[in-house]
Amino acid sequence: MSNSDCRDGILFVISAPSGAGKTSLCRELIDSFSDLRQSISFATRAKRGGEQDGVDYHFVSTDAFQKMIDQQQLVEWAEVHGNMYGTSLATLTVAAEGGTDLLLDIDCQGAAQLKKNYQQAVFIFILPPDYIELEKRLRGRGTDDEAVILRRMKNAEKEIPAARWYDYLVVNDDFESARQQLIAIVTAERCRSLRTANLLDKFTAKGDK
Amino acid sequence: MSNSDCRDGILFVISAPSGAGKTSLCRELIDSFSDLRQSISFATRAKRGGEQDGVDYHFVSTDAFQKMIDQQQLVEWAEVHGNMYGTSLATLTVAAEGGTDLLLDIDCQGAAQLKKNYQQAVFIFILPPDYIELEKRLRGRGTDDEAVILRRMKNAEKEIPAARWYDYLVVNDDFESARQQLIAIVTAERCRSLRTANLLDKFTAKGDK
Repeated sequence: MSNSDCRDGILFVISAPSGAGKTSLCRELIDSFSDLRQSISFATRAKRGGEQDGVDYHFVSTDAFQKMIDQQQLVEWAEVHGNMYGTSLATLTVAAEGGTDLLLDIDCQGAAQLKKNYQQAVFIFILPPDYIELEKRLRGRGTDDEAVILRRMKNAEKEIPAARWYDYLVVNDDFESARQQLIAIVTAERCRSLRTANLLDKFTAKGDK
Repeated sequence: MSNSDCRDGILFVISAPSGAGKTSLCRELIDSFSDLRQSISFATRAKRGGEQDGVDYHFVSTDAFQKMIDQQQLVEWAEVHGNMYGTSLATLTVAAEGGTDLLLDIDCQGAAQLKKNYQQAVFIFILPPDYIELEKRLRGRGTDDEAVILRRMKNAEKEIPAARWYDYLVVNDDFESARQQLIAIVTAERCRSLRTANLLDKFTAKGDK
């Protein structure tokens, strides 16, 4: 008997400022657990080179996205740097029914919305070592122009100090130790008694012998 | 910067019925973390072969133990199978002042006492796969006579169904996965924001650039 036989699916919600290394760390996490699935968000932004529809995001028009909001098909959505991103209720429902653990890579606004209705989700915030290193990483990836970098830094300065309500803070200073900490969080949360207390059901007060 | 620079020492409290493998798992845990120390309990029972005073336990007389209770030097104590076991306040104070994480291998009664005054301690309960396997392991170690085995089983049947209040349940079916789960719990708890929120202090709302 393993703990996973006896519990509901868990939502792991990961946020971070742009440049903190969230995308790479989420990929590592998905690769480390055969029984953890990445939730695919809906997005209105243009597909970037190498991205695939239905894999990286479900790419939709602004109109289609607005329709999903109006029809209450989204459990969270947010405007980030001028584009809309959201998670569909259907994604969570399918995972819950299958008892699947789901990894949600979403921004702080979306995470705060989710927190209201999914109290038992696990909220993880990835921190850069400091602002100087964050800016260095944003410049280092060479994908954003100066205005975008400044906007991302401004967002980081709003988001990081507000991250206190997350359950876990992981500093991505050394990538490998951040990776191990995330793996540990998933493993540990799967052992939490609030999720696995039915393990005890077979041990009745008089024994099951 | 690692998380451990920015937080108070954590108390990890591990309980389990006799035969669940707690002693071996605690040893593995101590071996896995150079910055986790085992708390040494006071005990009135006779030293067993291979045990060392001040290493396995502080072995004391029943009179000396009673004096510690009277002088409120113990944060928890319990009678287990006719012997007294307890943890001294001094042990916890020294660890707290040094910012050291401490592993307490104590029984359910002691853990319940600690829970009242140390809300932020982490309580872990190790489960056997089932009662049949537990009895098999107790017989297999060949150290206890029939009466002791029956008493241990009776205790297990009281303790396990009451373990719901612990933070984590770890099933020791496969020793290696139980070991990894315990390591993950220690690693993850060190990232909890309730312990590390001061990581955010350096990220003021306006940035520290």
